[in-house]
Amino acid sequence: MKQLNNSDYLNNLRHSCAHLLAKSVKDLWPGTHNAIGPAIENGFYQDFDFGPSTSSGQAVKISDADLPKIEEKMRQTLKTWNHFDYKEVSLEEAKKLFADNPYKLELAEEFAKGGKKLLTNDPGSFLDLCKMTHVENPKKEMQHFKLLSIAGAYWRGSEKNKMLTRIYGTCFPTKEELDHYLWQIEEAKKRDHKKIGQDQELFLINNDVGGGLPIFLPYGAVIRQSIDNYIFQEKKKRGYTFVWTPHIAKSNLYVKSGHWKKYEAMFPPLKLEDEEYALKAMNCPHHFQVYLSKPRSYRDLPLRIAENGTVYRYEKSGELNGLFRVRSATIDDTHTFVRHQQIEEEYQRILDLIKKIMSDFGFKKYKMRVSTRDVKHKGKYLGEETLWRKAEVAIQKVAQKSDIDWYLGPGEAAFYGPKLDIMIEDAIGREWQCSTAQLDFVQPVNFDMKYIDEKGKEQKPAVLHIAILGSIERFMGVLIEHYAGKFPLWLSPVQVKVIPIADRHREYAENVAKILSADNIRTEVDSRNESMQGKIRDAALQKVPYMGIIGDKEVTRSVIPSVYPERSRREVEGSRSQQKLFISIRTREGKDLGQINLKEFISKLLQEIEKKY
Amino acid sequence: MKQLNNSDYLNNLRHSCAHLLAKSVKDLWPGTHNAIGPAIENGFYQDFDFGPSTSSGQAVKISDADLPKIEEKMRQTLKTWNHFDYKEVSLEEAKKLFADNPYKLELAEEFAKGGKKLLTNDPGSFLDLCKMTHVENPKKEMQHFKLLSIAGAYWRGSEKNKMLTRIYGTCFPTKEELDHYLWQIEEAKKRDHKKIGQDQELFLINNDVGGGLPIFLPYGAVIRQSIDNYIFQEKKKRGYTFVWTPHIAKSNLYVKSGHWKKYEAMFPPLKLEDEEYALKAMNCPHHFQVYLSKPRSYRDLPLRIAENGTVYRYEKSGELNGLFRVRSATIDDTHTFVRHQQIEEEYQRILDLIKKIMSDFGFKKYKMRVSTRDVKHKGKYLGEETLWRKAEVAIQKVAQKSDIDWYLGPGEAAFYGPKLDIMIEDAIGREWQCSTAQLDFVQPVNFDMKYIDEKGKEQKPAVLHIAILGSIERFMGVLIEHYAGKFPLWLSPVQVKVIPIADRHREYAENVAKILSADNIRTEVDSRNESMQGKIRDAALQKVPYMGIIGDKEVTRSVIPSVYPERSRREVEGSRSQQKLFISIRTREGKDLGQINLKEFISKLLQEIEKKY
Repeated sequence: MKQLNNSDYLNNLRHSCAHLLAKSVKDLWPGTHNAIGPAIENGFYQDFDFGPSTSSGQAVKISDADLPKIEEKMRQTLKTWNHFDYKEVSLEEAKKLFADNPYKLELAEEFAKGGKKLLTNDPGSFLDLCKMTHVENPKKEMQHFKLLSIAGAYWRGSEKNKMLTRIYGTCFPTKEELDHYLWQIEEAKKRDHKKIGQDQELFLINNDVGGGLPIFLPYGAVIRQSIDNYIFQEKKKRGYTFVWTPHIAKSNLYVKSGHWKKYEAMFPPLKLEDEEYALKAMNCPHHFQVYLSKPRSYRDLPLRIAENGTVYRYEKSGELNGLFRVRSATIDDTHTFVRHQQIEEEYQRILDLIKKIMSDFGFKKYKMRVSTRDVKHKGKYLGEETLWRKAEVAIQKVAQKSDIDWYLGPGEAAFYGPKLDIMIEDAIGREWQCSTAQLDFVQPVNFDMKYIDEKGKEQKPAVLHIAILGSIERFMGVLIEHYAGKFPLWLSPVQVKVIPIADRHREYAENVAKILSADNIRTEVDSRNESMQGKIRDAALQKVPYMGIIGDKEVTRSVIPSVYPERSRREVEGSRSQQKLFISIRTREGKDLGQINLKEFISKLLQEIEKKY
Repeated sequence: MKQLNNSDYLNNLRHSCAHLLAKSVKDLWPGTHNAIGPAIENGFYQDFDFGPSTSSGQAVKISDADLPKIEEKMRQTLKTWNHFDYKEVSLEEAKKLFADNPYKLELAEEFAKGGKKLLTNDPGSFLDLCKMTHVENPKKEMQHFKLLSIAGAYWRGSEKNKMLTRIYGTCFPTKEELDHYLWQIEEAKKRDHKKIGQDQELFLINNDVGGGLPIFLPYGAVIRQSIDNYIFQEKKKRGYTFVWTPHIAKSNLYVKSGHWKKYEAMFPPLKLEDEEYALKAMNCPHHFQVYLSKPRSYRDLPLRIAENGTVYRYEKSGELNGLFRVRSATIDDTHTFVRHQQIEEEYQRILDLIKKIMSDFGFKKYKMRVSTRDVKHKGKYLGEETLWRKAEVAIQKVAQKSDIDWYLGPGEAAFYGPKLDIMIEDAIGREWQCSTAQLDFVQPVNFDMKYIDEKGKEQKPAVLHIAILGSIERFMGVLIEHYAGKFPLWLSPVQVKVIPIADRHREYAENVAKILSADNIRTEVDSRNESMQGKIRDAALQKVPYMGIIGDKEVTRSVIPSVYPERSRREVEGSRSQQKLFISIRTREGKDLGQINLKEFISKLLQEIEKKY
């Protein structure tokens, strides 16, 4: 499909806004030093040193309450900014110009040492050392900004350095876009998966087990398992075979794959009987063993080896974030081994599967990033130049032929090959990268993979590394926020809450629950001594899709069979009890569906579940 | 049920036989030193030092070929052994008596230091230092022995010591029992799960990943998953709720549970940001977090928290053995939190569930071991004496009330409580301990677990630790040998192999396979250019339960619909194509079931699967 521009303009705009923030803060608090101010996803930040916190004088400490004042100053300043004036300077000149700012001095020295040009710019009474590009017409383009929050951050991210003050903000080309983003932030707060996860008892992260190591509580484990089963079924239908692999291996395996050197998030190794083992950070080397377990012929290919495998990644504790950033991540992984001439067709199948799955989860809009090497840092990658070129050409061809809009992501490739990354848009318009399909000519060389072709000749396969949901933990976090906790029926931990109005309706309620459970409808009975209204309210808070209310009216209308089935569905059908029982149904949205025959209700539920409403 | 004797007599018999072996070897190879000779499961061994392997003289090296000669010598010697003569000796006397045997000297010193009595015995011209008890009438009782194999073993198991020669043997009270055991060994060799696992491509253990870390290949993963699903369904029906927990936690969690000190097989810790983490060797501390995640009331109990959770246990590399002894073991774990007055009833339910599940896997005979503390080594256990006494009384009461025969296993308790261990008997009469249900009053104290009773008072629950299959890996090893690789239909990785006789039958065969797959029958088509006989032979070797053969006769008789369904079962039913297609069925046992209508065949298969044939 068509190639989109990537977000260079937005990055320039936001980075330019960091300059505006720096100037304004320095005007408000003279003597403050600005450090770095890059564009980040959805905005920018600017770091400041507000001066020494000596024992004599009180250091400046700003808070969220200062943000409006700073914004006001920015607005005034912006009026005078017509364009960024650039000038190349020598190290000596730079040292003079930024003599009072230790951060700029350090950067100037470093740039000079690295043989880089030293550039300054001045958009209006504010000279700064900066190698980035900026907007053409600041006064006009930078109007729609907003400061968002304040945090502490060490200079250059190292706790050995001074703690600076970081101000986050954002900037958009239009007011509409800014407003939409601010609405998104507010809306996202309401949907915070950490809060919903706690309220609905989905998962638990505690200090005894450790940060980034979520335990899925019974309700959360139901969702997790529903996702797991669904992925299994969809993949199985398409000829994927599943394996199971352990969570550790000798570290040599990762030396061979290159992860040991090139992948930063490996856990530290542990020693058993003089041999070094490591927790797996990736499933690939394990799945390669499956490929290598017997001689392969072209008839075996494509060979699709799948596993929802938990990997362990050493994320810094400061970067852990609910289910979004964890240390134990379960990847819905596939490694598909293909002949080179099968690459395009297999990619087409993969993209179709991604669209099917994402659409079943209610994500209908997507873009694709073609992630290629950072050509300036080729040392970050393994493998021969010719293989890389071939892979990057092949993957762009796939993108071009697909029906998904795409853009280039230079520097976003894996260390062994380029990737297609699918960006989905959630219910409030945020973008998430979950799916990835990576093309790898390098690992087949590392692991000496072979197959015999029709002519009896040895050939090397290519490997496609595919994750559709990515990390199931993170995907669940995205889902919770996407649905704001109101999961569709097929994913709801409790699908029906049966509510007896009085004690005398409890036995009937228990029997209705048994019949529902026999049809694999996840059912609970609320037999507390609460009012009906209270029970309905609690079930709605718990976001249970349907409540089945049982009172005198329902009991009277029903013909109650003398024997209730315990478990077997067949028995239940045999007794025909479903037809003779009635319940009144309410939805979590407060809709009253009135009295309904249990059999009819069950078939309605089963239909909804199958259609993934 | 009734209490059985435990196996003290067998142990005495076999250990006595080790003396006979020692005497006979020393007679055959004068100058040889005997070290230890204990009874082990199913037999005994005796260690020997055949003298120094100096550069000058050749050391004695015996092989399996020497075993008949040794047995003959043992038979001669036995004729003269009427009874064991015991005598207590002082350390000085012992030093004189065993002056030439460094191993006996070391043991004598050690026993004396430990304040133990020094006992010698002599059954007939063979004085030995030994604290064990022996049979009354050696000549008569010890007739039915057999030497089995030879291996190397370090003195006291330490690689720093000298490598000795270990001879394994067994002894039974009757010839019939010995013969049966020898038959079992031969039969077990044919059923060796390592060989079948390789032949049928079930699993893979290789040196790149590491010993004891099996990878389940696609076929093995199918069996594994079938077991997993089955356990999930059976537990779910009985009110178990499932959770998911990570494979690591801070080591402090295991310090709190006592595993860190009392459980030997913990993996070494690893450090992240100055905090120590460990791979979990047990799921309990994680499941306790689920209990503790919110306040509990008596209404929540019994609370059954289940997970098929993979744990990591540091087994010594020399002890690893296929799937029987692994380092990555997936326990079908449950931790059930109960009120003390619910213990008996819950145990009854657990025993019923164990019997149901084991019987579905074809194990119809079981015994139960009531595993209690080793009262001589109370330091091995955690928790107050009164709690232990209470638990040991309660668990014996459960055993007594159950309908399973049981015996006492002193010293077999877990460090936190006594256990009921179920021993199942496999198809060739071997016993396996898989299921365990442990009663624990200690961990609720360690983790300060509480619930509020009807009167609003705080109470402590008891924890039942339950594993029905034990380690799923080991259980699969047992199953492979139990079934000799001929899995019942519901567990077979490939349930039907469709065999087109000629190329022109291939399309028809593919369609039959699609229809079977749509009904979740695991189906493969053998479309190789092989003879029908060859394909049938290969499918039988692969132990596929049913082969569906398709040739001209089947195609001619069938009415072939023009459109074949791709996936949906509904479509398939809609097209009614099943009724109009015919195939000829053979079983892996070579039985010819003749031509059969596909619809009929599918319903036969589904019935068999449901009944777990």
